[in-house]
Amino acid sequence: MEFLSVRDAWKIIKDKVLRHVKIEKIIVNVRDALGSFAADDIKALIDYPKHDIALFDGYAVRAEDTTSASMSNPVMLRLTNKDVIGRYEAKIINVGETLPKGANAVLPYEYANVEGSIIEAIRSVRPYANIALKGEDVRCGTVIVRKGECIDFFKQALLLRAGIAEVPVWRRIRVGMLVIGNEVVRNMNIYLNKDDAVYDITSPLIIGALRKCCEVVDLGIVKDDENEILRMLQREDVDVFITLGGTSLGKRDVTIKVIEKYGDVLFHGITLVPGRTMAVGLINDRPIFMLSGFPVAAFAQLKVLVEPYILRIYCATIEVLPIMAELSSRVASTIGFLNIVRVKLREEHGKIIAQPLRLRGSGILSSIALANGILLISENVEGYDRGALVAVYRRDDPWGLKYVEGNIS
Amino acid sequence: MEFLSVRDAWKIIKDKVLRHVKIEKIIVNVRDALGSFAADDIKALIDYPKHDIALFDGYAVRAEDTTSASMSNPVMLRLTNKDVIGRYEAKIINVGETLPKGANAVLPYEYANVEGSIIEAIRSVRPYANIALKGEDVRCGTVIVRKGECIDFFKQALLLRAGIAEVPVWRRIRVGMLVIGNEVVRNMNIYLNKDDAVYDITSPLIIGALRKCCEVVDLGIVKDDENEILRMLQREDVDVFITLGGTSLGKRDVTIKVIEKYGDVLFHGITLVPGRTMAVGLINDRPIFMLSGFPVAAFAQLKVLVEPYILRIYCATIEVLPIMAELSSRVASTIGFLNIVRVKLREEHGKIIAQPLRLRGSGILSSIALANGILLISENVEGYDRGALVAVYRRDDPWGLKYVEGNIS
Repeated sequence: MEFLSVRDAWKIIKDKVLRHVKIEKIIVNVRDALGSFAADDIKALIDYPKHDIALFDGYAVRAEDTTSASMSNPVMLRLTNKDVIGRYEAKIINVGETLPKGANAVLPYEYANVEGSIIEAIRSVRPYANIALKGEDVRCGTVIVRKGECIDFFKQALLLRAGIAEVPVWRRIRVGMLVIGNEVVRNMNIYLNKDDAVYDITSPLIIGALRKCCEVVDLGIVKDDENEILRMLQREDVDVFITLGGTSLGKRDVTIKVIEKYGDVLFHGITLVPGRTMAVGLINDRPIFMLSGFPVAAFAQLKVLVEPYILRIYCATIEVLPIMAELSSRVASTIGFLNIVRVKLREEHGKIIAQPLRLRGSGILSSIALANGILLISENVEGYDRGALVAVYRRDDPWGLKYVEGNIS
Repeated sequence: MEFLSVRDAWKIIKDKVLRHVKIEKIIVNVRDALGSFAADDIKALIDYPKHDIALFDGYAVRAEDTTSASMSNPVMLRLTNKDVIGRYEAKIINVGETLPKGANAVLPYEYANVEGSIIEAIRSVRPYANIALKGEDVRCGTVIVRKGECIDFFKQALLLRAGIAEVPVWRRIRVGMLVIGNEVVRNMNIYLNKDDAVYDITSPLIIGALRKCCEVVDLGIVKDDENEILRMLQREDVDVFITLGGTSLGKRDVTIKVIEKYGDVLFHGITLVPGRTMAVGLINDRPIFMLSGFPVAAFAQLKVLVEPYILRIYCATIEVLPIMAELSSRVASTIGFLNIVRVKLREEHGKIIAQPLRLRGSGILSSIALANGILLISENVEGYDRGALVAVYRRDDPWGLKYVEGNIS
């Protein structure tokens, strides 16, 4: 069997699969936009602050009047209620309030002693101290959220502050997820009492990992039966199919057989460990990602090729940062394959240590449940020695996007 | 004004506030447990795999029979259908199936040529190659999720695999959140058209940051009015109150005044920048965290003292890892205060660079909306020079817990 390299597989996905999903912009209320990806650059509608405002409670003053102020040589300022501050005048101001004309700083209460209608400034303030200038936070007309950025709760707050009530975002991709396997069950009693029953843990895992970037339509479990599978793939209310199971390289690659007969298999078998049995195809003009039924393999496949595919549809711009860590033991890899090594990161005397968890076993869940980091070992690298400084990614970050786009050697 | 050190404030919270929340264990279906914190150690009910199983499609064999196998010197094995494998016998096996007795490895299809009922092994396999042993992933009786661990989708999958249908978790804390301020609005038209109106962006921000660890009951906005505030704090269906606004050190500390009169203010003013105006108290036997109305100050206060408080109630065990980064410019800090510096982390030639964003301005949201990292500068540190290697935390990680528990100097 020939295995396609992960990056060549990505090229096929970009060239032949991407255009099969039609994604529309929708306009949503900013309060409902959390987790969505902006479909356009979004510009501030107003300045914020709307005016120069106080950032502390205290006295609005002209900073130059306080220049010589000190404990031993206080400067006297006259309290006023006027709209305009003159030389050696001060006006009580609350945090958030607009600065009166003439003032260019706030002298905090603790920098002054009050003597009736006179205050003694005992410390100086510089121009613009303790104030925020008009438009300092948000300037009308500037882009505050770029196309492809995910709207997190900070961006959401920024949009609201910028006077924006509604935003254009991409409609969320609807993924139809189908589990395939005679022995797979979702009933705990059957799982516990039937010797060859396997609990469906892969679908909740993949749904959990996908939830951030799309909507998942759970199509349930079907047996290793071509007609059953085909019937489920007639759904027209989903954009993309993901199947779990039925992709092995031997007799039980039933999912592949269905797509070979009724659709188009673009590739089957990639240089990924765990996860070499992945296939991608088209059926009824819809992309179908055929993932392993094994949880760790399916997770690796999802991160390396499916998540990047979905993020690319959204034109998503996500910076994925590595954590540099020292390996606590040697890691060997399978040459010719991209190895997805699960590691446990911990801090030790100010250093970050990466402890590799067992490599083998695409069905072994505990390795990845304990891991908080992922080390990628490329096709042409034999492994790393103990003590090597390696770039590790957070398990749940979209590190696959960074890999396929070429930023990880 | 005297400012209490952040760690002393944490001591008061631990000594005097923690016991005011009664948290119960509840039993929930594992499928509904995502994001909850385990209230007990949870042990596996069964072994997984239930038996020794194949991890690849191929032939179940006795590994010792293949020891001398090579391309030039293949080893002949007789195909059998028996339940027990004898010397120089092999049986076809699919991934996931139970290994027949006598076999201790799987020879993948590509390691053998088939000649009728004989196969020629052309490569050797070691004992236990390509199989998973009974209990290798999950061993019956071992703890798979510890008390205080957050159940993410991997832990959820592990629990299901271990035969667990229901888990004891902590009921989620119900936080009543009240926004205080005459000028604060949630109506975009009023915000845009009324000169002194301020859009309530702090509450969605704090709700967003809190959503991971508790349930937020939105109590809306009230004016700077003692009776109005007091009335809202009569709610009996929440565990903890959080107020936003009305905590300044000057005239507008209306929230503090209410608690001074009708409850108990434990402290007001902490050595935190931004966020020095924070107060904590008790009212009607409920804890109340009085945060700033300014978004960045409120976020800093939340992360440094409120989130650690809630995680402590859950006995949460969360490892917070720093990212070591090189400062792209000098950072000065306010001596005597814990400085929460927003930084933008980026990768440059394999190095992680931390670019400090503006320090000043607790009301300036854009600094933290752009930031993906937080640098903590302790009370006794003057700042860091350009090029210094510093420990930066991810903005949304619970770094405050690590700080107050004493692991960050």
